Amino acid sequence: MLEAAAKSLAPDVWPDSYGEGQFVESFELRIAELVGMPAAVLLPSGTMAQQIALRIHCDRRGIETVAFHPTCHLELHENAGYAKLHRLTAELVGGRDRLITLEDLERLRAPVAALLIELPQREIGGRLPEWDDLVAQVGWARDRGIAAHLDGARIWESGPYYGRPYREIGGLFDTVYVSLYKGLGGFAGSVLAGPEDVIDEARVWRRRHGGTLSNLFPFAASALAGIDELIPMMPRFLPHARALAAAVGQLPEVVVVPDQPQTPLFHLHLRGDPQQLQERALDVAEQRRVWLFHHVEPTAIPGVNKVELNIAEPALEITPEEAAELFQLVLAG
Amino acid sequence: MLEAAAKSLAPDVWPDSYGEGQFVESFELRIAELVGMPAAVLLPSGTMAQQIALRIHCDRRGIETVAFHPTCHLELHENAGYAKLHRLTAELVGGRDRLITLEDLERLRAPVAALLIELPQREIGGRLPEWDDLVAQVGWARDRGIAAHLDGARIWESGPYYGRPYREIGGLFDTVYVSLYKGLGGFAGSVLAGPEDVIDEARVWRRRHGGTLSNLFPFAASALAGIDELIPMMPRFLPHARALAAAVGQLPEVVVVPDQPQTPLFHLHLRGDPQQLQERALDVAEQRRVWLFHHVEPTAIPGVNKVELNIAEPALEITPEEAAELFQLVLAG
Repeated sequence: MLEAAAKSLAPDVWPDSYGEGQFVESFELRIAELVGMPAAVLLPSGTMAQQIALRIHCDRRGIETVAFHPTCHLELHENAGYAKLHRLTAELVGGRDRLITLEDLERLRAPVAALLIELPQREIGGRLPEWDDLVAQVGWARDRGIAAHLDGARIWESGPYYGRPYREIGGLFDTVYVSLYKGLGGFAGSVLAGPEDVIDEARVWRRRHGGTLSNLFPFAASALAGIDELIPMMPRFLPHARALAAAVGQLPEVVVVPDQPQTPLFHLHLRGDPQQLQERALDVAEQRRVWLFHHVEPTAIPGVNKVELNIAEPALEITPEEAAELFQLVLAG
Repeated sequence: MLEAAAKSLAPDVWPDSYGEGQFVESFELRIAELVGMPAAVLLPSGTMAQQIALRIHCDRRGIETVAFHPTCHLELHENAGYAKLHRLTAELVGGRDRLITLEDLERLRAPVAALLIELPQREIGGRLPEWDDLVAQVGWARDRGIAAHLDGARIWESGPYYGRPYREIGGLFDTVYVSLYKGLGGFAGSVLAGPEDVIDEARVWRRRHGGTLSNLFPFAASALAGIDELIPMMPRFLPHARALAAAVGQLPEVVVVPDQPQTPLFHLHLRGDPQQLQERALDVAEQRRVWLFHHVEPTAIPGVNKVELNIAEPALEITPEEAAELFQLVLAG
């Protein structure tokens, strides 16, 4: 990874100083253009990018409440940073196991400064709203002066389903966050894109957060190969994910969620003992050199467990038949 | 820099996942031991490390005020992050152009949760309190249940003046922050060291701040060479800094601050036009391949400007005579 990053930095490129310098600034602009926004800022993490975007939307509206899905990253994985650092409160919208709907939004009574939409909704199997639903939800927000913010950590994986350029998806929103490591293979990092004035303010907040590192170029450098090589491959990942899902879904102990997958990230619900499933997946990894899933999470249904699959470049080598065979090994022991 | 980092990672080292993993954890422990603390956590920046340390000290004492020097990094360079994110307030202690004294502390009337001491005090020429004064100030705080926090961004440069091991200097304090890039040459990053329970809590705050990056190993890897090679060289930097300062200080337009330097970081006050000084330093850099100073800052005295010098490995090649000659060029045009 470090070698790839070193290669992507030409010897005549001068590193940035606290994010300032041609290399980082042109990288920011490239991402901004990709997602249909006029400006962008590089940050060390998505946690930082999203808290900052929401704080700015709240400050501008004099409202400290934001709306998001119950499985939003801010709710599940940030130890309440939005509350403990920014004193924001959250209105959770919609059900935990399904997508947000326009009806959910229309039922909102509390004034909110921003609506966060995550594409795809990771925790429910990488689901995506239909395009018209997405446009209606964003329109609902913007009609009311509510900022629409995109959690686009996996926007690269969402494009093929919509069959639209990323700039059209991102361009619906007021602000867009994208990850530099999830789909792109960088070691860490994120970009927040939006209007010039919002991004200028985000740079101030980045400093407050401790995100204006003395050098930010390594984050950009380590994601460049992914932008050049992995984004163009995304359209190949979705049909392959569907083919693998269809084959594995033939096994009686397996349910594919959603069936069929809308992005290369989807879930399998597997019958069995979670501990055994985890151990057998390790055995398969050791014997067959294929790492099937990371973490087995029991669901509310006894004996049914959730695993997340993410079909990217390495998985293109696996045929549907082999995938079914490997899952058979995990399930049968 | 990236190549050095790549070299320092053995091929069988597995990168961390969100800071967890043997490579990062043993790095944290190594720094903890160096500065005389039981535990430590790696963070992307010092801004994050210090806000987090102070927040924890405040929360535990139910007091939201901290005391620090008027030129503290939190006051000058963080866009009021401590106030805007953590809702902390500051009592500025002592005068802007001199070190904090015990008398300054005894005059404090507001209850404070923590006292931050910066070693060396960068903005006034890298000055250090005498050891007995330092011990008395830290003792004043600890006697009152006030946490003593060390801004040790440049602790490596402070050791030789005291002639004591870093663990003895750091060990005076409740929490210690060190930088991984200033003296050590990493691309960015910091470590916060302290008692186990404080560091455990700091890990939660790191996540809230957006500092628990998917991979933190690059920060550790890029600082390893500095720990192995630059820390042992620090005792050579101070006498060389003093020799250069003495030679340059012979010029009539130059005052060395402090005279003599206590660390390899010190200031020169130069008579002249700031713009001209900056341009001539650029000419010297182009013609003689020596970069003398970064930024010329006018002082309160008309015609007198401040520059910061930091004598590290590259400056060992410069003799006192050459330094005087180069500054003569900058001053005379």
